[in-house]
Amino acid sequence: MTATSTTPRTPARPSPEQALALRISETELRQRRRRVASELQSRDQRAMVFFNATSVFYLTGFAFIPTERPLALVLTDDDRALAFVPRLEQEHAAETGLFDDVRAYPEYPGERHPMARLADLLRDLRLHDQPLAADAPGYASGWGYDGPRLADVLPDARWTLLPKLVETHRMIKSPREIALIRESARWGNLAHALLQEYSRPGAVETDVAFRASYEATMTMIRTLGPSLEFRGGKGATAGFRGQIGPNSALPHAITRNIRLKPGDVLVTGAGATVWGYNSELERTMFVGEPTPEQRRYFDLMVAMQEVAFEAIRPGRPCAEVDRAVQAFVDRHGLRETWRHHVGHALGILGHEAPFFDVGHETVIQPGMVFSVEPGIYVPGLGGFRHSDTVAVTESGIEFLTYYPRDLGSLICG
Amino acid sequence: MTATSTTPRTPARPSPEQALALRISETELRQRRRRVASELQSRDQRAMVFFNATSVFYLTGFAFIPTERPLALVLTDDDRALAFVPRLEQEHAAETGLFDDVRAYPEYPGERHPMARLADLLRDLRLHDQPLAADAPGYASGWGYDGPRLADVLPDARWTLLPKLVETHRMIKSPREIALIRESARWGNLAHALLQEYSRPGAVETDVAFRASYEATMTMIRTLGPSLEFRGGKGATAGFRGQIGPNSALPHAITRNIRLKPGDVLVTGAGATVWGYNSELERTMFVGEPTPEQRRYFDLMVAMQEVAFEAIRPGRPCAEVDRAVQAFVDRHGLRETWRHHVGHALGILGHEAPFFDVGHETVIQPGMVFSVEPGIYVPGLGGFRHSDTVAVTESGIEFLTYYPRDLGSLICG
Repeated sequence: MTATSTTPRTPARPSPEQALALRISETELRQRRRRVASELQSRDQRAMVFFNATSVFYLTGFAFIPTERPLALVLTDDDRALAFVPRLEQEHAAETGLFDDVRAYPEYPGERHPMARLADLLRDLRLHDQPLAADAPGYASGWGYDGPRLADVLPDARWTLLPKLVETHRMIKSPREIALIRESARWGNLAHALLQEYSRPGAVETDVAFRASYEATMTMIRTLGPSLEFRGGKGATAGFRGQIGPNSALPHAITRNIRLKPGDVLVTGAGATVWGYNSELERTMFVGEPTPEQRRYFDLMVAMQEVAFEAIRPGRPCAEVDRAVQAFVDRHGLRETWRHHVGHALGILGHEAPFFDVGHETVIQPGMVFSVEPGIYVPGLGGFRHSDTVAVTESGIEFLTYYPRDLGSLICG
Repeated sequence: MTATSTTPRTPARPSPEQALALRISETELRQRRRRVASELQSRDQRAMVFFNATSVFYLTGFAFIPTERPLALVLTDDDRALAFVPRLEQEHAAETGLFDDVRAYPEYPGERHPMARLADLLRDLRLHDQPLAADAPGYASGWGYDGPRLADVLPDARWTLLPKLVETHRMIKSPREIALIRESARWGNLAHALLQEYSRPGAVETDVAFRASYEATMTMIRTLGPSLEFRGGKGATAGFRGQIGPNSALPHAITRNIRLKPGDVLVTGAGATVWGYNSELERTMFVGEPTPEQRRYFDLMVAMQEVAFEAIRPGRPCAEVDRAVQAFVDRHGLRETWRHHVGHALGILGHEAPFFDVGHETVIQPGMVFSVEPGIYVPGLGGFRHSDTVAVTESGIEFLTYYPRDLGSLICG
């Protein structure tokens, strides 16, 4: 149709599925790939092999279950993306990942080892004697995998390890990534609200956590409709991970079948996965009225989190946020209750670099997304920790989680 | 009290919590540790560093959330077990793991890197210039970790990599391990029965899976009482992982929000975690009456699984089981529908070595526990796969899963 045609043109309309745009667009995936390809060019590398599942997802949108079967993305310096997958992932990769080609091998270990077949593929691409990069010396999996390194199967290539290339790119989130994390926080908030509602004396941890997660997930599905793809995860979750009563003094307790009772301190966790992206919301709650001692630690924890929020400014090193909190810890005689640094970045993974830690000098930049979660842990009494997810802006932070933080709002039962 | 005392002695009675004995005993954990220690002696290694979380659990019972913070077990050749943990895991490791000592470092990355502190610990133990083994060159984590190798921080030690030592020990399960996997299968069976009950036309995948998992988990908790510890996992689960209708033709689909409709083929999965041990139960089900074509593939799949069961005999190589099934595949013209090997070992992990794969010559031995799950995948129509968990006996196999396998029992709605 030409510009002079008199037939009125129907403007291209997004399909209903695209209305909420709950995904990373193909355009953005292509930008990510091109950025890597151009870095390979500037480093004089002809191609790069990615074994890391998070990197494969980041660059192509292909979410899969990593197993003992090697799976790799080969990205060439002219931005050609080849999937190297076991036969059982061939159609799955072709249908859901942004690849130019998908090459499948039969099985692991198979009659010819998958790493030898990956070498065949690189030879087919005439890359066997070229300078090549990889994110790891070889494939790795705890699920019974065993195999040679890339340098063993393709010794004529000149291998360079670039384990942190994509991790560095992932540190600064795009507006769309932040939108997905914000969407995740919305459903984590609903799951948490239900968790609080069901947290009553006599309730069992697993019951409360399951019901809250189930109802929030179903509401998420009904509300967002076919726009929603998890790409990892199973929807919204909320729970305690064993952090109930005295057990909440263990920052990384694991799920048990504890029954809630009056006087318990609870440390919660909630989130949701939206097209592979996650948020983190944690709250300290009380079953009934807290004791004066519990109230005192709660107030100190909230004040400590405020110190952290204030310290997060673009241009400062991450370490300064931890140092500000450590100074608070010492000023208030809390050293004995200290267990961990202030927070970590997050996005596709629940924990990502950089860290708000005295040992991490990475400069805070707009677009970074962090958990902010300094904690106080008192053996025999309980743990006190809120975690909020914040995005760094040009001047400070924007909250992506928004659940109430004050004590009055966090009493259950 | 002497043997001649006239006071009748009350025999030692197990506590109610021990009645079901749903755990690996301290005696058995000590046997595992001693076996490693004696192998170190025979190899002239003074100690071994374990970074692998599964190995740490296997040798000490300590289940934890692996993060960016390095965590290691140092086991000496005289069977002394030291936990090297971040501060936030110190009490958790001391309370739940079988360690002789727990050494905590403040945090990762911290002012002094945890790997440098691990070197300090090994120097304190006067092991810095000794022959030492490790299961990996250094700590590894996708969660933003970065750090030096053991050989970098302790260059005077003579390092030997033994990445497969404990994995090899884990291949043969003890009677207690098999009992835990059998207990897991019982609750997987309940979750699966509920899943089938709730699988009706119009139902949404996530709804059905969540309800079945929730109810089975709560029943598991109520039935077993305080004897039950998950040590990983959250109880019983059942679901489809997206394997519904045509999407079931993808062997490793991931969870979506698919609505069940008449004529759908479903491929399910169910299991439960009991003190860290797992089972695997998968079934092919139909929403309503299957078509003749669906019935034909179902019958072929069941016959193929029978071929596999028959082929599993102690003393044969694992590869023979796969070869027997591959012969069946070719005999019945099913090559186009073939996607993966026959099965894998399992226990603490969902997939473990060895594999029923043409490339795996490991000899089948009594005490090994395998999934048996050859599948048929027809694009557009669906997938056909049952998975059963079996233990190898002196003469053949014993079924740990027992859900009906016949078509008549697997029609829903």
